[in-house]
Amino acid sequence: MEQEELRRAGRRLLEPAVGLLARMGIAPSAVTLAGLAVTGLASWLVCRGEWLAGAAILAAGSVLDALDGGVARKRGMVSRAGAVLDSTCDRVGELLVFTALMAGEAGRTLPVLIWLGPAALGGSFMVSYTRARAEGAGIACSSGLMTRTERLILLVASLVAAGVIGSAEPIEWMLIVVAAGAWLTAVSRLVRVFREDRLTGGYGQRA
Amino acid sequence: MEQEELRRAGRRLLEPAVGLLARMGIAPSAVTLAGLAVTGLASWLVCRGEWLAGAAILAAGSVLDALDGGVARKRGMVSRAGAVLDSTCDRVGELLVFTALMAGEAGRTLPVLIWLGPAALGGSFMVSYTRARAEGAGIACSSGLMTRTERLILLVASLVAAGVIGSAEPIEWMLIVVAAGAWLTAVSRLVRVFREDRLTGGYGQRA
Repeated sequence: MEQEELRRAGRRLLEPAVGLLARMGIAPSAVTLAGLAVTGLASWLVCRGEWLAGAAILAAGSVLDALDGGVARKRGMVSRAGAVLDSTCDRVGELLVFTALMAGEAGRTLPVLIWLGPAALGGSFMVSYTRARAEGAGIACSSGLMTRTERLILLVASLVAAGVIGSAEPIEWMLIVVAAGAWLTAVSRLVRVFREDRLTGGYGQRA
Repeated sequence: MEQEELRRAGRRLLEPAVGLLARMGIAPSAVTLAGLAVTGLASWLVCRGEWLAGAAILAAGSVLDALDGGVARKRGMVSRAGAVLDSTCDRVGELLVFTALMAGEAGRTLPVLIWLGPAALGGSFMVSYTRARAEGAGIACSSGLMTRTERLILLVASLVAAGVIGSAEPIEWMLIVVAAGAWLTAVSRLVRVFREDRLTGGYGQRA
């Protein structure tokens, strides 16, 4: 409920930018891809240990990422393919940031990130994957405590903290919290799928 | 076509094992989870650099993983939830193996795996994720050259080669091939989604 209100407030805030992009005739998919490019730049900064700059660019990228849907609605270009591209780019962005943390400055200072990174990245993917698979099977499943917004806020906050105190440790704690929360969310979604699945019928599997 | 024939031949081969498990009253989900546990054991061996043993256990686990669907059909327990669990466990298994490669013996010998591991793991996830999202959006999308079977065969082959020659290098090459093939597959699936998406209509996004 409150989440929905926040989302609507956010949309109103972004309305001018959405209007501008729409009037400029920019395609929503271009906005999505630009958001990913900005996340890529942020990841490069994060990898080099420039955590404050990385956090700032990451936050900027997530604003771009919030605009694509609005532009699509405004231009009457809402499409299923656009939605698939959008969430695919979200996953690629997470892959870039977590890899930057593991392989970059933070990973060198805290070798434990070689385990924490995949745990957090894997959990984040699982949250999105369980939802996508559940929806493919006709079961709605968007609940959960560690969805992308929460992950992003924790990520940016930990980068800021790391930049301010000049140590990678806040990143370690963020990865622990994200990993724990994400896996819990993924498992709870699976449990929900099993609860909701009253029908049985042939359903193809495999990827 | 040929793939379908191979699959049917495989099913006939596994028929006795499927019958046995079904008669023992074992639930298909239990078979799925047992397959994941075996993959976890294989990952632990891989992490320790015991590549030949890891390859053998991994192959054994993939046989278990091929049995769950048959047991479900035989016992009349085919369900959408079972299919979601099955593909979720596939992803967790891949996460375990790739993390074991990055963080274990191979990663210590070849530090480049800190980049190649996430590239291959991320690509593999993307192949499955694009399909799941496309199906959620009502677009069938199972084509592609680097699906799970191909990835598994390359993985096991590279582990055997690494074990035989006593060097982690074949693992490096496998990760390059898997990463390239998987990302190509994921992108081609996205392109297919854009081609097939003739309809436009509101579709919720976000994970």
